[in-house]
Order: sequence, then structure tokens, then C-alpha cells
Amino acid sequence: MSEAQRIKAELSGRRREPAVGSHVVSGGHRFPSEPWHLREVGLDQNYLAETESLFALSNGHIGVRGNLDEGDPHGLPGTYLNSFSEARPLPYAEAGYGYPESGETILNVTNGKLIRLLVDDEPLDLRYGKIVSHERVLDMRRGCLERTVHWCSPAGAQIKITSTRLVSLTRRSLVAIDYRVEPVAGPVRIVLQSELVANEATPQQSGDPRVTAMIENALEPIEHLSEGHRALLLHRTRASQLHLAAGMDHVIEAPDRYSTEVTAWPDWARLTVSTELSVGEQLRVTKFVTYGWSSLRSVPALRDQVSAALLSARDAGWDGVQREHEEAYAEFWSGADVELDGPVQLQQAVRFGIFHAHQAAARAEERGIPAKGLTGTGYDGHAFWDTEAFVLPLLSATAPEAAADALRWRLSTLSLAQERARVLRLSGASFPWRTIHGHECSAYWPAGTAALHVNADIAVAAARHLWWTGDEDFGRDCATPLLVETARLWLSAGYVGDDGQFHIDGVTGPDEYSALADDNAYTNLMAAQNLRSAVAAVRRWPREDVGEEEIASWQDAADLMALPYNDDKRVHEQARGFTALQPWDFERSATHDEYPLLLHAPYFDLYRRQVIKQADLVLALHWCGEAFTAQEKARAFAYYEPLTVRDSSLSACTQAVVAAEVGHLELAADYLAEAALMDLDNLEHNSRDGLHIASLAGGWLALVAGFGGMRDGPEHLLFRPQLPPGWRRLRFAVRPRGQRLTVEITPGLVRYEVAGSEPLVIVHCTGERRSEVRLRSGVPVTRKWRPVRPRTPRPQQPPGREPLAIGRLD
Amino acid sequence: MSEAQRIKAELSGRRREPAVGSHVVSGGHRFPSEPWHLREVGLDQNYLAETESLFALSNGHIGVRGNLDEGDPHGLPGTYLNSFSEARPLPYAEAGYGYPESGETILNVTNGKLIRLLVDDEPLDLRYGKIVSHERVLDMRRGCLERTVHWCSPAGAQIKITSTRLVSLTRRSLVAIDYRVEPVAGPVRIVLQSELVANEATPQQSGDPRVTAMIENALEPIEHLSEGHRALLLHRTRASQLHLAAGMDHVIEAPDRYSTEVTAWPDWARLTVSTELSVGEQLRVTKFVTYGWSSLRSVPALRDQVSAALLSARDAGWDGVQREHEEAYAEFWSGADVELDGPVQLQQAVRFGIFHAHQAAARAEERGIPAKGLTGTGYDGHAFWDTEAFVLPLLSATAPEAAADALRWRLSTLSLAQERARVLRLSGASFPWRTIHGHECSAYWPAGTAALHVNADIAVAAARHLWWTGDEDFGRDCATPLLVETARLWLSAGYVGDDGQFHIDGVTGPDEYSALADDNAYTNLMAAQNLRSAVAAVRRWPREDVGEEEIASWQDAADLMALPYNDDKRVHEQARGFTALQPWDFERSATHDEYPLLLHAPYFDLYRRQVIKQADLVLALHWCGEAFTAQEKARAFAYYEPLTVRDSSLSACTQAVVAAEVGHLELAADYLAEAALMDLDNLEHNSRDGLHIASLAGGWLALVAGFGGMRDGPEHLLFRPQLPPGWRRLRFAVRPRGQRLTVEITPGLVRYEVAGSEPLVIVHCTGERRSEVRLRSGVPVTRKWRPVRPRTPRPQQPPGREPLAIGRLD
Repeated sequence: MSEAQRIKAELSGRRREPAVGSHVVSGGHRFPSEPWHLREVGLDQNYLAETESLFALSNGHIGVRGNLDEGDPHGLPGTYLNSFSEARPLPYAEAGYGYPESGETILNVTNGKLIRLLVDDEPLDLRYGKIVSHERVLDMRRGCLERTVHWCSPAGAQIKITSTRLVSLTRRSLVAIDYRVEPVAGPVRIVLQSELVANEATPQQSGDPRVTAMIENALEPIEHLSEGHRALLLHRTRASQLHLAAGMDHVIEAPDRYSTEVTAWPDWARLTVSTELSVGEQLRVTKFVTYGWSSLRSVPALRDQVSAALLSARDAGWDGVQREHEEAYAEFWSGADVELDGPVQLQQAVRFGIFHAHQAAARAEERGIPAKGLTGTGYDGHAFWDTEAFVLPLLSATAPEAAADALRWRLSTLSLAQERARVLRLSGASFPWRTIHGHECSAYWPAGTAALHVNADIAVAAARHLWWTGDEDFGRDCATPLLVETARLWLSAGYVGDDGQFHIDGVTGPDEYSALADDNAYTNLMAAQNLRSAVAAVRRWPREDVGEEEIASWQDAADLMALPYNDDKRVHEQARGFTALQPWDFERSATHDEYPLLLHAPYFDLYRRQVIKQADLVLALHWCGEAFTAQEKARAFAYYEPLTVRDSSLSACTQAVVAAEVGHLELAADYLAEAALMDLDNLEHNSRDGLHIASLAGGWLALVAGFGGMRDGPEHLLFRPQLPPGWRRLRFAVRPRGQRLTVEITPGLVRYEVAGSEPLVIVHCTGERRSEVRLRSGVPVTRKWRPVRPRTPRPQQPPGREPLAIGRLD
Repeated sequence: MSEAQRIKAELSGRRREPAVGSHVVSGGHRFPSEPWHLREVGLDQNYLAETESLFALSNGHIGVRGNLDEGDPHGLPGTYLNSFSEARPLPYAEAGYGYPESGETILNVTNGKLIRLLVDDEPLDLRYGKIVSHERVLDMRRGCLERTVHWCSPAGAQIKITSTRLVSLTRRSLVAIDYRVEPVAGPVRIVLQSELVANEATPQQSGDPRVTAMIENALEPIEHLSEGHRALLLHRTRASQLHLAAGMDHVIEAPDRYSTEVTAWPDWARLTVSTELSVGEQLRVTKFVTYGWSSLRSVPALRDQVSAALLSARDAGWDGVQREHEEAYAEFWSGADVELDGPVQLQQAVRFGIFHAHQAAARAEERGIPAKGLTGTGYDGHAFWDTEAFVLPLLSATAPEAAADALRWRLSTLSLAQERARVLRLSGASFPWRTIHGHECSAYWPAGTAALHVNADIAVAAARHLWWTGDEDFGRDCATPLLVETARLWLSAGYVGDDGQFHIDGVTGPDEYSALADDNAYTNLMAAQNLRSAVAAVRRWPREDVGEEEIASWQDAADLMALPYNDDKRVHEQARGFTALQPWDFERSATHDEYPLLLHAPYFDLYRRQVIKQADLVLALHWCGEAFTAQEKARAFAYYEPLTVRDSSLSACTQAVVAAEVGHLELAADYLAEAALMDLDNLEHNSRDGLHIASLAGGWLALVAGFGGMRDGPEHLLFRPQLPPGWRRLRFAVRPRGQRLTVEITPGLVRYEVAGSEPLVIVHCTGERRSEVRLRSGVPVTRKWRPVRPRTPRPQQPPGREPLAIGRLD
């Protein structure tokens, strides 16, 4: 194994993920371009793990990977419950004060989606016999996965299977499967085995033998039972002592002659249905699977919860369950959809992104939104700043309750963050870089603990959510405590220097190829927003523990915040002194195929040079745009583009937004395509471990904040509409303050329309002009726009790191 | 366990060691002040592990801790062979490119110093019965450990034991013990068991179960045999496949009636002597133990080597072995001793330091000199920059062959250092931060890999050694390749910036409370010395692979080297921007008893503030003094003193040297005392793991470079003699170019005398005046001196971190 392969293997599932540009697109695997569906025709068994991620279903509470009904073959079997995890040791060859001792790893829970089939005694396994046809369709509008199989067994028996799977939006604990078998060419004997299986064997996830030992057989059986067509398994995790209940029930529709048997063992339960089918007959089994877990509630309580959910689902029946689920999806899409009259593949990809971002969060209900959602075990199932910086902007604008819940989850971990701040010798609260339950799980502090900006990301996301919803209860009870405790953090982390400016030293910004820098511009500007929002919050909702003096100190720090600038180069610095560092040798890296760099270069070398993993100063240009003039933005974008290698998936979308703002519309479209196609084209070669939820949400950002030019605040929603070359239309909806605002951009024109109970003022920008537009429900307003005139030539990227060109799309 | 205790436990034996000031001196345990002896009267069983370190004997090849002859009770049983180690995994919860996968740990080898005794069938164990008297004496002049015991068994039998132990300077593979027993009050039956024991149980050394498993039973038996009074055990290490042979032979003198038995098993061998002694009779056993190990040589070759050494020692007998050993020590001391007419305890401590530094290196012969010598398992037995920066200055001046061997060891690892440079994307060679065999074993790269200064420390030590010895062969074959490859490293690590200066970014200097700084002054100045010495070396010994252009580039880089300076504060900066950082809250740390800080604060907080673990800029003031004016030195010392907490043992000696240079003589004496008494007073509370060889050598530096004011080069040896208040005399000897130079400082006068074949020119300084003095063999020259006038008041240290006050000494 080469050094690069070794490191890559070690890094798999960790944060230092590789990212790649257009030159290594996996190719070969593509889906037909359909606006609402992701359709796989045939079955590429080399690509199973990736399609399992793409076809994963989730409601934010339960996640099931798109494993085949019959379990085998598989890439990575996976069923996850948000935050159901086990503690794992974090080893250090050299320990240090404040290093977290224990991490958390998401667990593959009891697999309830298994339905095995024997056809004339031969097991249905697509690696044997002949696949006459195989199709899987993710229906993004309806939120379900459909599958049709026409299979000829090795002995020549032919059957057709149709299955539909959903993870209910309306019933949080429910997975439902509609499974139908019929013979094609002659009568067949069918034995169907519907199962619950705990402690499935999964591929090794760690080089540490202790971690492997912990993850294998993570679940300790407590109880198992079966009755009628139902079965239940109860387990608990060994170290973290979380209890888990999984139940299944079935509705069977079959010709007269059939028998059933149900049985349960500690780690598995099985319902067997045996019958003979003639051509024209069908065996239909509706399988309901319900889950419950808790660290607090008793085993009987969990058992009852799961049983109750099963009975209720059975009462509603497949049709009822499906109908209410589809209605919920229709309601979501009405205020979230993006339509574009451009490449259909991009239309598909953007909807795919919105769909998965929403799935990851919808019913999480005060649990975190992991970087991979519930689609795989990548990053151990941890949530990062991705949530607040990339996913919540989408959710606050389109699914506000899900966004509020994600922020309430952060609030629920506030006491842990306060403890962590004490360990770091800071005031207020310091939220973890990576976590499931709120404990810091980052074992490499220069790129974890030191990335204090996560605190501003959270606080500003809370302030933004408040801005979008106007929800007073949220503002007082959730946003304000988050803002106050993070404001305190910043005040203790920084200081007023001899130059009269407020400095924050020794922190790591978003760019993970730099670390421990002074005055990281993004961190400082976000901290200033955090401080200002805290001032506003405590003015609106005064608190006994915050006096005038403290408020004034926040305001002062925000006003005095340092923003490093190189006078000679006339450009803002990513951090103090950054622009004086040696440049990276990009030519060498291109020649020697060294991307992603982290697999070919030590941090030692990366940190000391001008080379940027992901948008950092450019991220500040997007989210803290008011701190820069248009001229400064154009120069900064031009300066940082040739240094940014995009070895992270958290970059292309931001570069799309800023490229659009500075008038490089074609480049913006290229970056948009890269962000949106991250997983559909497996651009980082690791979609098997789960999807890049933030990049997928970033596709929406690229369209709405990029071409829509949408910015939130300070007072009104602002739009600077544009279209990429050749596009005929872009239409999107957002939900400010409970209303639905639709924006439709066509060449030269934009049409704003609001549906709701109150008028809405927005700001329309084009060129240097800004004008307020007062919208009344149902009365569209049309305005003209013209594209931003770029002030620099289209900037170059590092050699070999040009974005995925949109031109190659359909 | 508190957080601090937990971390402390985890850190034990690692590099981040605690250091403490005078307020926590262990107290209670003190040795009588004797100029040449370290005497322990009685036996403090709570302090066994510490005295085992203090009483350790070594010749640089073999090290034996001062364990009691009978093995029990013990603190940490220990017998070490230089570089005899096992590979151990280095675990990372988050891996990274270039992280070393495997470390090395020194092993406790076959224990050959065991001599157990049964007195009337009762085992001699000092925890039982009654200790009438017990005394151990380390005789530093003769290089041996003597012990006398008068013990009364639980049954009332009384015996007296006298034992003398030495690790031969002249016979590299030999340990010899002279052991005598006699009855005191009446006849006793005596059974003496002399043993070899492999795989002794030792206290757990790591929290990692894999490491513990590796260290326990590290030795796999190959062969065992016994014959006559001899026995041999052969083993090999499981992973690194090093072979080890240990043999013993005995000379027995006893009354007529005695019997013997010898036996060997895979992990132990035993000679038993059984006799009865009447009052006036004595049993005397001389035990010779020899060791051999190799990664290359065959088992028969090792077996033969050990047997030959045994026979040769037996031929010489105890008296012969002892005599030649003592003669070698006399020769060493004649050119190394320091005599002072001041506190006797300090006289003792300084000799103790010289003794142990010499012991650690004397016969290492192209093996490293570990930070703990061969006195314990601290730091896994690794060598660091300590060797070159603190120990070699002493050895080059007093035991030049040992110094040359240590540098030849570095040269022998050059190809590994070249490979490491490639991994770091640098040219030339990059030597490891910590190692046994030359592989980088540092698992925390910001304080390991990034501390590039180790390369300059090695290169400059080689240049200095050449300067001291004038050894042409060494210069051409050892110094030049080291200088060339490190010069290449620096040229690739740095760059000429827009300001025309040569910068080295992103490195860690000596101060381990800072990391990844730009233009660390010590690193830059040492790199410049390295580059200049490389230029001189290739001019003297031209090499085909070094052309004029490359030489010119080295010269340019040296000439353009950046040296950061704060114009406002009028002080040199430890690194660019250092003096602008926030100060540490020393008051808080003093109030909350937070020293050493690394047990109470995360690197995150330490790195971003002005707080210094150990002399860094001040180290540059010592070794790169020509870069600073006297005024600048005084200001810099005054600036950095209040920031330096001395949480490292590698600080006090340097502060002593510079304090003396800037005229704070009392402070210099205080620091001298702290450096020299590091282990005798157990100032860091970890002497049990082994001695702080660099700090002990630092005691010599403090005297010779501090009060002697000795500086080497550029052309001549330079002295600026001074005396601490109240001292009547300081006399030391060094060996420049094979001669012996003696310097004797008395109040107001200094006497220089050379013994050798050629005249020697030195430079005598006092006040602003420098004068050359030409010395002829045997003709002493006397000059006047007056103390340096301090330009600042005596600087303050951080509260609670004042040095050990010399005033409290005898």
C-alpha cells in the first residue's frame, strides 16, 4: 500500500476528506436526467455502496440506506437512528490537557428493511441467476424509493418484484415497505422471510482494534418476542447504555394457500410466509418497522412505544401511511422547490440536494444534523459547523421548524459547551467541532478545538433563523442564550491590542490547510456579527445576568474588530500575515497528481504556505459581505481563486455565490454544478460513506444566493437577480415569516410574488441601484435586471483544479 | 482522579514533562554535602525509585539503575543497553500524512545485578527484620556505587553486607559486583543466589493496552545454558528482532565448607552458594555480568562475545577490573573537573551533573545519548535536541571522543533524515525530534516535526566539535556531510520575502508553549550559523556535489536571515509578532497553583499568549550572542524573564548563563543551583523515571559559560570571568585541541594555565575590553576582572516561579 493509500485508508470516515476536481470525475455511472426522479436502470454491483447512499431514505430521526430488500449483495448495510451511538476511546500517543478521551460513533442499528425471498427454494440473490431487468427510482417529490426487479432464477423460475419503501415524515418512528411478488412465466413456490437483524457484520471502520471490537457486536440483547405477524427485539449499547427497541408487523395479501411462521431470537426475528403463486397471482406484504431508543426511558416504555406505533401504522394501512407522507412532502416542496430552465441534470441535482438536506433534518427534533445526514457512517456520524453554515440557511428559508429544532439541539448542549469553554480557559460557551451528543470528539485540536468560528456559525444561524421566522419564543428562549454565551466566548478569546483593534489570535478558520492563525478574517467578522446580534437580542429580551457594561463591551469589540488587509497587494488577508507566506507549488502538485493535498503533504508544509483547502476569506465575502466594497470583493475573489484547491466539499457552493456576485456567471454555474453533483457524480470518491449534505444544500445556496443574489438582512430580504448564460428561467420559493415568496428570474426580468397574510417588503438590486419593493399577497411585481459587470478577468484556479464544467451537462 | 492528575498520568514518561520552582522542592530528602560523594544514610523506601535513578551507573552502553542488590523492594527495576528497544504502535484518533506509525521504546533487559541472600533460611528483604544501618555511596571520582548493610533478620540473625558495583569504562560490556557477607553476632547459615532474570515485571508504562502487551514479556527466549559458575541467557525482541545475550560468571571466596549449584531456564539463571559462616568469616562473591546485543550478528557470535568478555574479566579479577576503571575516571576528571569554593552542596551537585552526563555518553560509541541517559525509561529512552544543545558543549570540551561518537551516531542516521525531509517536502536532511534509531518517533507534530531547530542544533554541535578538536577526519567525514545536508534543509525551508529578508515560517522553537511560529529568532540565528559553517566546511573540504552557486545561496540566506524586532518595545521578538500577543495571566496561575501550566491549560491557550516554557530568545542570546549588542541582550533578558515559567528542565542553565552575562550574578547563581539540583532535589518530581541529563550538563554550562563567561569562537576561546557574591574561587578545566586549559577565578583575578604541546591563544574580557592572551604550557597567566555592571534592575520572574534560591544551600 502506498503512503497515500495508507493515509487515505486511515482517514476514511474522518474529517480530512479528499475532494477532487473535474479531471477525476468517476464517469461511467450516470443517471438519466429527469427533473423529479433519480433512476437507476440495471444494477452496477461495483457501485452498490454509492447507490445505497444516494437512495437512502430518512426523516432525520431514522435513516435507512438504499440496501436491496434482500440484504445481499450490499456495499454497507445501514440503518441509523439519529444520535444512537456508542462511546469509543480516542487514543493519543502523546496526550495533552483538554484532549477529549472518548469519542462517539453512530451505530448501525437493528436492520428492519430485510425481506428475503426463496423462489422454488433458491434464494433471490442478484449475483446468481439472471437479472432480466432492475430499476430503482428515488421519487423526490413523493419521498419514496421504488424498485422493480424481473429475475430469472438459476433454475429458470421467473418472478417480478415491486417494492416501495418510505421513512415516514408524519410518523417519526416508522419505516414502511410495500413488497409484491408475482410469477412471470409459470407457477413458483415462494418463501418470503421478513426479518429484524441486530449486530450485522459490517466492513471494518477503524485501524484501532479497540474501536473495531466496540463496533462489532455493539448491541447487547435484552429481550426478544414474537406474536402473530409481529416481532420485537430490544438491545442496549455496552458502554453508553442506550436502549433500543425495534419492532415489525406485517399485512399479508396472498392467494388462499399460504402459511406463516414467526420466531424471535436475541439478535434476530423472522416472519416467514410460504405460498405458491400462479401467473396472475401476487403475494403482497406490507411491512411496518418501528424504532425507539432512549438513554432514560425504561425497557417496558420503549417496548410499548414501538408496539403502539406498529398498531397505529397497521390501522392506517399502507395507503394511509403513504398518503399522509406524500401530502407532507407536497407541502414542503411548495415552499422549497427550485425550478430551472437550464440543464435538466442540474435541475435533478439541485432537487436531489434539497431533498436530502431536508430528509436529514425534518424530524430530527432536537438532535444534531450529521455531516452525512443518516445516509452512512462517514465522520462517525458527527455533526460539524456544516449544519449551521450550509444547511440551516436552506432550512430556515424553507423548512423553518426543522431549522429551529437543530438550533434547539445546540441549546440543549449548552452546559457541555460551557464546561468546554472552562477547559479552554474561556468564558461563555465553546461548542464542539465534531460531536453527536455535544461532547467535543475532535482528536486533532489544531483543526478542531481551535476552529472557534463554529461558535459564531451557530450563533449567527440562530440570529438568522430569528430574522427569517420572527419567532419570539425562539428568539427569547433559544437564540438569546446562544448569542449571549457565544458573545462571552468572543470577548474572552480576543483582546484590544496596542493598535486599538480587537484581535482574536491563534484560531483556525474554515480553511483546513491553515491553522492557528491570528485574526482570521472570517472568524473575526462572524464574531462581530455574533456580538452585534447578542447586543440586539438582549436589548429585545433583557436578561438579569447581562448588564449595560457587558453589552457595551460586546458592541465595542464588534466595532473594533480587526480585519487584516495587505496595503501593498490591496487585498484582504485570510489571516494576519497570510499574504506574505510562500505560495504553494501548484505546478508540482498538478504534475505529480497530488490532489487532494492532504494525502500527499504534511500539515507542516500546508500550514506554512499560501494554499487554501476551502473558501475562507471568500466565505466571509458571502456571509459578511457588508464589510467589503464591491471593488474589494472582486479583488479578493481574484486573489484567492488561484490559491483555492477545493480539497473540501464545503467550497464550490461558496465560490459559486461569490463568483455570481462579482459577475463571473459562467464560473458560478460551473461551481454550482460541482456542488450539486458532489454525490451524484461521486466527485470525492467517498459517497459510499454517506452523502455530503452541506454541499448538497450548497447547490440551493448557489442558485438562490448566487443567481438569485438573495441576502437576508439587515432589514429586508435583498435580491440581485441574474442568470447564467443560456438559461431561460430560474424560479424558487422561500418562506420568510410564515409567508411564501416566489422569485422567478427570466432574461432581463424578475417577478416577485408573495402568498401570505401580510405585505412583504423586499429590496431589488441591479447594477448600483437598490429599490424597495412592497409586495402584497397574490399581486406579483416585475422588475428589470442586468448582469453584474465583472471588474477582473475570469480568475484561474490552480492547475488541474478547475471546477466541473457545466458545459458538459445535458 | 482530577483532570490534572489524569493528564499527568498520561504524560508520564513523555516529553511534556512538568517542571517546578522553588516552592515545591520535595524537601525532606537531602544528602550530606560532600564534594565527591553522594551518600544516603538509612533507606527511605518511599524514595526508592528516585534514588535508583540518582545511584544509576552507566558507561553509555550499559546502564543499571541503583536497585538494591537483592532486587526487592524496588521502585523501578532497570537494566538498559543503549538503543536496545522494541517497536511500538503510535496510535492516532485522527491520522495525517507523514505521521510516524511506529515508535520505539527502550527495554529493561536481562537483570544481571541480582544477588539474593537467605540468612538462616530467611530471605534478606529490608522490609522485614530490622535495618541496623544502611548506607549507599556514589563515589563520583572512582565511578562506583558502594553499599553497606547491617541487618538483623526477623529471627534475630545479624549480618553485614558490603557490596561495590561498577559499570566498566574500560570494558564496554561489563558490569562487576564485589559482594561480601559476614555474620555479626553469631554463626549464620547463608545461601546466596546470584541471578540473571529476563522479562521482569515492571510498573505499567502506557495507557495503551497494545503498548503494555508489547513491553511485558518483550523478550523471547532463544537459548539458555549454565556450566561451572557461569550461565548465559539469549533472547530476542518480538517485533524488532534484536538479539540479546547476557552472561554471568563468579569468583567465590568462602570458608572451606560450601557448595554451589548452577542452573538455567529460558527466562532465568541462578548460581547458588550455600555455606555456614562464623563470626570473623566472610563469604565473598565477585560477579561479572556481560552483555551483547545486535540486529545483525548471529546468536553464536553474541554467545561467544559475552563468554569472551566474561573470561577476560575473570582473568583480570575484581582488583584489575576496578583499577583500570578508576584510572579511566581519574583521566576524565583531570580535564573535566570543576572546583568551587562556595556552597559544598553545589560543588557536589555540579560534579554529580558532570559525572552523569559523562556516564551517559562515555562508551555509547555511535549510539544516541538519551535525554535520561541510561538511568530510566522516561521519554521511552529517546534522544532529543538536548544532546546537541546542552550535553555536547560539555563533552566536546571535556570528553571529546564521546562527543564525536554522538555526532557520528547522527551521521549514521543521515539517510533516514534525508527520507524524512522528502516526506516533509524539504531538501537535505531533517533529523527526528525524538528517536532511538533515527526514525521520527514524535506523535505530536506541532512540537516535534515542526521543531526544525534540532537540525541546526546538530549541525552547529558538529561545527563546534570540530572547532574544539581541530580533528580533520571528523571535519571532513562527519561535520561536513551533516552541515551540507542541514544547510540544504534550511534553504528549502525558508525563502526571501518581499522585504529582502530570509524567512523561515511555521516552525516551533525551543519554547514548547509556542508553536508554528514565523521567524523564530533562535531557529533563524542557528540556521544562519549552520549555513555559515556549511560554507566554511565545503571551502575547507570541497565536495563534488556542492557547487559555487549552492555555496553562494547558503551565504546569502545566512546574510539575509530575518531577526524579528519590535521597534516600539525596543526588544527582539521570540518570533514574528510574539510581543504583540496577549500576556498570560500569571497571577491567576500563581493563585490557583497551576504550574506546570501544561497540566492545567490546553495548548490552544498557551500557544496564543506570551508565556514561555523555557529559554528560547534567551537561548539565542547565549549561543548566538554575536547577533546582539550588550544593550540588546540586557533588554531582551529583562523582557523575557517575567514571561518564562521554566516548566522545562532545559531553561534554568541558560538563564544562568545570560543572567551572568548581563550582570545579574546573584540571579545567575540561583539558576545555576536550580539546574544542578534538578534531580538531587527532584525539582520536577519525576526523577524516578530517570535523570535530566541536559539539565545536569547545564550545571556545568552555568558555571563555565556563565561565571567563566566562556564562549567558543569565532577564532579563540573567550572568557569573561566573574564570581557570584561570596564565592572565593572557581576553577575548571577544558580540553581545547588536545591540550588541557585550566581557568581559576578568584575575587578580581583570573589565572589561565595550559598543559600541552602547543601554545594557546585565548581572549580575556572584562568590561568593554578584550585582550588576547598567549599561553604556553606550564606558564600560568593572571589577569584582572571586574563584574559586569547590570543595565537593568534584577528582573522579576512570574509570581511563584522564582528560581531555587542559592541562599538556602549549605
